[in-house]
Amino acid sequence: MPKLSGHITVVAVGKMKRSLWLEAQQEYAKRLARYTSFKLIEVKDSVGKGFPDETAKEREGKLLLKAAASSHRRILLSPDGVQMDSHQFASYLRKMVVKYGRLAFLVGGPIGFSDAVIQQSEDKISLSALTFPHELARVMLLEQLYRAATILNKERYHK
Amino acid sequence: MPKLSGHITVVAVGKMKRSLWLEAQQEYAKRLARYTSFKLIEVKDSVGKGFPDETAKEREGKLLLKAAASSHRRILLSPDGVQMDSHQFASYLRKMVVKYGRLAFLVGGPIGFSDAVIQQSEDKISLSALTFPHELARVMLLEQLYRAATILNKERYHK
Repeated sequence: MPKLSGHITVVAVGKMKRSLWLEAQQEYAKRLARYTSFKLIEVKDSVGKGFPDETAKEREGKLLLKAAASSHRRILLSPDGVQMDSHQFASYLRKMVVKYGRLAFLVGGPIGFSDAVIQQSEDKISLSALTFPHELARVMLLEQLYRAATILNKERYHK
Repeated sequence: MPKLSGHITVVAVGKMKRSLWLEAQQEYAKRLARYTSFKLIEVKDSVGKGFPDETAKEREGKLLLKAAASSHRRILLSPDGVQMDSHQFASYLRKMVVKYGRLAFLVGGPIGFSDAVIQQSEDKISLSALTFPHELARVMLLEQLYRAATILNKERYHK
């Protein structure tokens, strides 16, 4: 019985279009689904569609909050979030799953989160002090969730 | 005239075989080559070929040191290396290029570096407190080198 149960949703802004990232995203999503009830939801991005940045942020924010329902504990991927190593992240994930059951990790687009999303989210984590393209950050998050699952199950990491 | 000149070599253990990472690697290597004399050298990996881990490490280490000649300042990607944000990394990279001209970033395989590589390298940097697969770490490094080049040139990041 996998040690990571619960319901984990990743809600991200924008459809992963480029094959470059899509394959990695699909691979880790598939692996994760073996350990937990996992969902990846891609909400519509509004950047580059003629809106001012603030409007685009708000539009994306509304969709993020709708997809990551308030029944979920919301965790933002944010440059000013808590940084952990992979074992700390695995413990954190287990603790959160036990406590809240349903977790939603929110991954913003290139312009970040609206104020509403920030106000209505309880936690913030950071994957690195470095800034990465949001597509790559999404892949890094999925890989790390999968890695956490293998750590909690004391399994060898599948390369 | 690009602000990042010098000669930058990334030496990594193992051929990137899976299309999943290969495309990203090629994309960032191509972009980087517009800013600096850039080379990516993949040395032969010895893991999973019947050698004990220590022997595999030594074999890989010899190839890494040969490829990253001593005319280059060697910088290891290592979990205990210095962490920076992207702007700090860009400044660091410029400073190193100005001072040493030829830089070699060394990316180990899944079992890490031999003692010889550690002893004969001057610097260590870390991309994240988290552990990532070495293929993904390699892509993260290339992306970050490209990002540093755009920062130093005050260019918009090309998505």
